[in-house]
This record gives sequence, C-alpha cells and structure tokens, in this order.
Amino acid sequence: MRLVSYQQVDEIGVGVMVDDIGFVALPKAAPELPTRLKDLLAMGDAGLSAAASAAEGKAADYQISDVNLDPVIPDPAAIFALALNFQAHLDETGLTTNGKYPHIFKRLPSSQVGHGHDLVRPFDAGRFSYEGEVAAIMGKKCRRIGVDDVGDYVAGYTIYNEGSVRGYQGHNRHFGLGKNFDKSGSCGPWMMTSDEFGDPNSHTIITRLNGEEFQHASLELMMFSHAEIISYISQGYELQPGDMVVSGTPGAILGKKHKDMQAGDHCEVEVTGLGTLINDVIGEPEPA
Amino acid sequence: MRLVSYQQVDEIGVGVMVDDIGFVALPKAAPELPTRLKDLLAMGDAGLSAAASAAEGKAADYQISDVNLDPVIPDPAAIFALALNFQAHLDETGLTTNGKYPHIFKRLPSSQVGHGHDLVRPFDAGRFSYEGEVAAIMGKKCRRIGVDDVGDYVAGYTIYNEGSVRGYQGHNRHFGLGKNFDKSGSCGPWMMTSDEFGDPNSHTIITRLNGEEFQHASLELMMFSHAEIISYISQGYELQPGDMVVSGTPGAILGKKHKDMQAGDHCEVEVTGLGTLINDVIGEPEPA
Repeated sequence: MRLVSYQQVDEIGVGVMVDDIGFVALPKAAPELPTRLKDLLAMGDAGLSAAASAAEGKAADYQISDVNLDPVIPDPAAIFALALNFQAHLDETGLTTNGKYPHIFKRLPSSQVGHGHDLVRPFDAGRFSYEGEVAAIMGKKCRRIGVDDVGDYVAGYTIYNEGSVRGYQGHNRHFGLGKNFDKSGSCGPWMMTSDEFGDPNSHTIITRLNGEEFQHASLELMMFSHAEIISYISQGYELQPGDMVVSGTPGAILGKKHKDMQAGDHCEVEVTGLGTLINDVIGEPEPA
Repeated sequence: MRLVSYQQVDEIGVGVMVDDIGFVALPKAAPELPTRLKDLLAMGDAGLSAAASAAEGKAADYQISDVNLDPVIPDPAAIFALALNFQAHLDETGLTTNGKYPHIFKRLPSSQVGHGHDLVRPFDAGRFSYEGEVAAIMGKKCRRIGVDDVGDYVAGYTIYNEGSVRGYQGHNRHFGLGKNFDKSGSCGPWMMTSDEFGDPNSHTIITRLNGEEFQHASLELMMFSHAEIISYISQGYELQPGDMVVSGTPGAILGKKHKDMQAGDHCEVEVTGLGTLINDVIGEPEPA
C-alpha cells in the first residue's frame, strides 16, 4: 500500500494510492480515521488495515497532480539523517567519520517540502546540493531494540532529497543550520509500506538534475543499514510513530562530479520500486 | 511576569506565579486562553497581556510543589543548543570550535523533563554530566533578523540543565544521540518575561551537585550572546513562538573539576534573578 499526505482546499488528509496517479481520500472513505498519517500510524496495525479496507475497490477521488502533496509525514517528532554513510560520498567530501557508530544529525520538519513543491535556494547558500536518500518511517514506539527486531517497528519507506546548504554546513563541526534551511529538502511522494517495499538493500537510488543522472547507487552500499541506524538511535531515544530515519546519500556516479542546484533547476530522486520525488528549485530573493 | 506549564490530575495549563511558590491557574482564571504556553505566545503581545490581566490581584490556585511542572515549553518546534560557547568549557573539554559562527546543535523535547522531575542516567552513559545554561524563549516568528532586532522577538528566559551522555556524545563528529537521551536534561521552573529578566549578560549561572558548587560564571563570558545566536539561526530557519535557544555551558569553577551525575544525586542550576531549577537523578535499570 502507498499512502500520501495531502491538502485540497480546506481538506487535510491521508490518501491511499490506487495506481501511480490517483488516490482514495480517507476523509471521504473513512472520516472516522485520523487526518494525519502520523496519527494513523499511532493506531498500530489497526490504522493501516482500516485504511486498506476503506480504500478497497474504490475509484480515485483525486489525482496527486490536482492536490498539494505535503511531505509524507508533515509533522514528525524527529527526523534523523545520516552523515557520510556511503564510502564514495565520504571520499568525495574529504570529511571524516567514525566507522564504528552511525553518524546522525537532525533535520527540522520546516526544512522539507512535499513532492511537486519548490525547493528554495538561499541567496547566500554557497553551494546548494541535492542528496538522494531513502527514509524509513517508524510505525511503532521503540526503545533499546536490537537490529533484528527493527522490522517490527518500521511502517514503510519514502524518498528523501536531503537538500544541503553547503555554505552554512561547513561553519562548524556540527552541520547545524546547513541542513535545516526552510524548504531546502523534500520528502515524498508517498510512503510505501514495508511489506511492499521489501528489503531496502535490494533498491537503488538515482538522482537526476535537469534530466541528467548524477547519482546511481545500490542501498547495499550503505555503511550502516536502516535497521542498524534505528537500533542505534533507539538506545537513547524512544522512536515515535511517524519519525523518519534517512539513509545518507551515495557519491556521484563514477567519473562524474556533482552539480549544484540553481534557481530554475528540476531535480528528481528515484528509488527503484518506490517511485520518483520531483521538485523544482526557486531562488530566495536577496533582502533589500 | 513568570509563567509555568503544569499538569494537575486531568488539568493541563499555564500558570502565572504570584510569588516564588504559588501561581494563578489560567484554566480557572481565563479559560478562554490556550492551555499551552507555546500557543499563548503565538497570540503575540495580546497573549501575555491577557495572562497578566487574568492573574492580577488573584490569590494562588496551586503551589508549584503540589503539581507536575512540565518543561516550560513542553512541545517546542525546535530547541537549539550551543556547543562550546564559553572559553573555559572549550579549554576543559579539549574540543575545538570555529570562533566565527555559533556552534549549534539540536535537542528533542523528549530529552527534557520539568523542574522537580527525575533526570534519568542511562546505564551505559559513560559519564553523565550536568550543564547549567540559560534558554531564551521565542515569542514571535522571525527570519533573517539582525542582532539589534532580536529583542523584539524574545518572550523571556528560563533555566536549562543541558544534561549530556558523554559516552555517546563522543561517538562521532556530531554530538547526536549524546545530547538527546530521553529525560537526560531539564528546563524550568518558569519563563521570566524579558522585561523582568533584563539583559542576560547581567546574570550569573551557578550549578550545584549535592549542594556543592561546580559552575559559577557570568553570562558575559558567552562567546556568542543569545541575540547573536538567534540572529544567526534566523538566517536559515524561521523561528517559531516557543522555540528555545540555549546558551551553552560555562567551565568548572577555577581550580575545580566537574563531577558526573550518579543515581541518587541532587542537581541545582541557579540563574541569578531568575530562580533555581532542581532535579534528582535516578538510574536507568540495565535490561535483563
């Protein structure tokens, strides 16, 4: 099952995709269900089952191109992202990491937009970079869980463009503000449930800028898998339904150099078997 | 004016202190006002004025010792904390920072408890340290503001114990999980409005463990002031009412070494003119 978070005029809701284009609107099909995906997930397996039942056999109410798609989880309690989790990215940045522990940092929900919305390039960005990634979305609370048990707590996966403002990211040892500019990243178009997505390592991330491929890498190349990262985070923090754990980004295609995002650019992150997250880039006007 | 966030049986609300002990409960005095301080602040100056008017001349409904005090803002959109913002702390840690930009990282709301609640020392903490600090609380949204304008957007200040799990903090270049263990830090007892608190630099932080002073430093020693930090953050992120910006911690008293927090300890962070934040420490049991 694939689920979207959307807004349509005054309606805020969760939708169940019936194909790659249209979805059943749960506020119409099952008005008793929560209107936010995070709250639906917090119902446990019953929430996703109820959504599936409500949509079964129904025709689409909307096409995704006719609504505003929110980030899949617009309001997660936490977004953990990974720094330097692919060797080729580590090599190309010249940065260092401790290979023994996942290198986590956090993004704020305000730093992400949904599928089809504009990414905003700050006027003083220095370099503004795409980072094609895959996010796991938590379905259940968990604390101090082992790697082998993580699957029981993940609801599904979505695509992430972990857009980065390099001029600020390098200000200090923590990436800090460079990973948290308003509307600098994106997430979507939908969450695919774990049963349908299968093993993350069997998928590939492909990032295109203006149609040209710049990243193309298997998730097998992750230094820490989603399960290892989630188990690690759970040692300190009780993960909540809707929390996101983002994979880190691969390096550029062999022999190629990354190109930064400029106003007017069109960026696509495809994850095989999941879909494609598409955003245009606009420039933030410099204040007078 | 000093405001608390509290819970009392089924009642959740904001209180206005009438002295150091008792407060007028706004759910009783002004049931039309929001029950969360963040939402009261989002009303702009009108929210704080309405709270002051509602409490004026009234006797206390509760004493703070009779209720559960929440962290002053239980659910901020963002908590920005400062790494290495006092030279003496920089010296004692042996860590490095870039003196040109504030060194920011983020804490999650789940990492903080209110005044009087127990801090939890993880069984595998390595060292578990207090960090006495002062948090500015934002009153209004702002983006790309200058240092001189910050005062217009800050609602008040509170005390922060930025409790740190050193064993995890050192895992990587980002402090990551070490600053985000559940219930590892605290915030309270109240927010004092800016007009009453005055210039942060005229105040002193004093941290005591089991009655013995370990930190005693003027906020004048901050390498980046609250105003400078907030202006910096606002370049990338639109600050929201209720967001917190925490000062960073001073070094130990000259000639003294820090002592780590153990189960059974009693920790106090006093900020002169503001009050004292008090928490006991309990140990997390090791899983079987």
